[in-house]
Amino acid sequence: MIIDCHGHYTTAPEAHSLWRRSQVAAFEANEPFSTYPVISDDEISDTIEKNQLQLLRDRGADMTIFSPRASAMEPNVGEESVSRAWSRACNDLIARVVTLFPDSFVGVCQLPQSPGVAIERSLDELERCVVELGFVGLNLNPDPSGGWWNAPPITDPSWYPLYEKMVELDVPAMIHVSASCNVNFHTTGAYYLNADTTAFMQLLQGDLFSVFPDLRFIIPHGGGAVPYHWGRYRGLADMLGKPPLSEHVMKNVFFDTCVYHQPGVELLFDVIDVDNILFGSEMLGAVRGVDPETGHHFDDTKRYVDALDLSDAERDQVYCGNARRVFPRLDLALLSRGTS
Amino acid sequence: MIIDCHGHYTTAPEAHSLWRRSQVAAFEANEPFSTYPVISDDEISDTIEKNQLQLLRDRGADMTIFSPRASAMEPNVGEESVSRAWSRACNDLIARVVTLFPDSFVGVCQLPQSPGVAIERSLDELERCVVELGFVGLNLNPDPSGGWWNAPPITDPSWYPLYEKMVELDVPAMIHVSASCNVNFHTTGAYYLNADTTAFMQLLQGDLFSVFPDLRFIIPHGGGAVPYHWGRYRGLADMLGKPPLSEHVMKNVFFDTCVYHQPGVELLFDVIDVDNILFGSEMLGAVRGVDPETGHHFDDTKRYVDALDLSDAERDQVYCGNARRVFPRLDLALLSRGTS
Repeated sequence: MIIDCHGHYTTAPEAHSLWRRSQVAAFEANEPFSTYPVISDDEISDTIEKNQLQLLRDRGADMTIFSPRASAMEPNVGEESVSRAWSRACNDLIARVVTLFPDSFVGVCQLPQSPGVAIERSLDELERCVVELGFVGLNLNPDPSGGWWNAPPITDPSWYPLYEKMVELDVPAMIHVSASCNVNFHTTGAYYLNADTTAFMQLLQGDLFSVFPDLRFIIPHGGGAVPYHWGRYRGLADMLGKPPLSEHVMKNVFFDTCVYHQPGVELLFDVIDVDNILFGSEMLGAVRGVDPETGHHFDDTKRYVDALDLSDAERDQVYCGNARRVFPRLDLALLSRGTS
Repeated sequence: MIIDCHGHYTTAPEAHSLWRRSQVAAFEANEPFSTYPVISDDEISDTIEKNQLQLLRDRGADMTIFSPRASAMEPNVGEESVSRAWSRACNDLIARVVTLFPDSFVGVCQLPQSPGVAIERSLDELERCVVELGFVGLNLNPDPSGGWWNAPPITDPSWYPLYEKMVELDVPAMIHVSASCNVNFHTTGAYYLNADTTAFMQLLQGDLFSVFPDLRFIIPHGGGAVPYHWGRYRGLADMLGKPPLSEHVMKNVFFDTCVYHQPGVELLFDVIDVDNILFGSEMLGAVRGVDPETGHHFDDTKRYVDALDLSDAERDQVYCGNARRVFPRLDLALLSRGTS
């Protein structure tokens, strides 16, 4: 079984996106939000079948851990009530995809974060998504401002209520920012990777996993700049008087394979233990074109992993075992369906 | 000949740093700055001989392109007059090192940048350093705020007066931020690498080199996250309708080898043309320890380059030829001394 740990619903029905626009306009006009539109199962199926599901099949994977479009989370737009209603709508839409295609998609939620609003206010939506909708994880935005980086680091105790809830529910978080509203940062070419690098270094500087030994984070996009600079991080851990990274951070942190060329994926596997790597593509995401050097899509990351010299056991870990270990609720769901 | 393109005076005499503290205190107390202290040649020689020069010899290199300590540039501290006096003091100190050790060091200046102050105000100091002190380049800080990223991107026309002066003087800039005052960003573990990644993506998004075809930038720390995500950048260039990176950016952008482990340096050379790589170590910088996996200093990057399978011509390019091409004033200085 091959599980892609990183997919967003980037092809959601137009009515969903139009409602978002009307919602923001209503907020700005100080009017009530309109009722969320009726979207038929057929409309949803259509956007999935010809996109993510088609590619999943074409590329030979079986299941995607699926969450709302990251760049559209926009926790900085409007105020808490806007983020709350929008997050709920996005998560409900993911739940419908999962209900329509239970063998191919499993849900991960976005949180109704809002700049300056306590993270406690996001816990009810997380609990709803996990307990009622059967989601297996969440996306955690370390910079709800959208590029101004004025929230506390993810090691700050103000985040602890979320971590307590994550441990209670036994769900991991992918660290993922949304669209950049800072002109310095291109969303997918700078902001995403910077956030990955920043989050890892915060975890290195801090000591979060001694407080929450069962907490698990996925740092996407191959860990940002981290594996390429693995020597720098090993050296910084030493200079800061921290234990080796294998003990200090890497029992709790995982990287995906969203690195869009063979040499990058090779480096990732060269320096990061196979226990810490989850197959992911973020397909139909940042980079949708075909690489003229290979003739294949940049984000067809399975090709890069397939080309590695891995044992069958290692390949199974990266494609399936690690995801089932990091997302125990996914493992339980698969077991309950008879997938060993 | 082996030239290290990236060294900062991280071991400056204590009197220099004490003056800085007194300068900032004077600014805060609204008092005049005290007179810069007398620092003897012996004091300067001592800090260099047992540190950078010793390591240069031990590791088998010949010359360092040397600039003031990057983390201490702090253009955000005080106001323009503070940055101006401090930059001049730092640059003058570099000039003294170069005068004392002309065979081993050549100068690069810091600019008296200040948040919100037009870059035109930095041009006189750049000209002084190049024309009067014989410096061969400059460090350009793309985020003078120190971590809040509220200046325009480096492709914005507000920077053009600097680029015109750089072209006129025929000097390149290394893109280098200073210390982070944003608690989210560890200076050397996140902020530096994020700035490298951010700057590259700004150049990819923009079209700066069609306006300034002779402008040259060095993006340090191995280009931040860029080579590891080279497929992403090739794909983004395509999605944004830009020419291939080799034409659009890589005639004018160069990466150093400040990547502190063998696999990272191998990736760099695997994906980036050897024409675009300059040997650098930033030694006595961010990571000063010994790698327990190799028994050698993390920042002894020459070992990683030596271990690569390069032809003699390629090795000479990376160690010397590219630096002399990117820093034409260094080339002229070496030629005038009879170094072919």
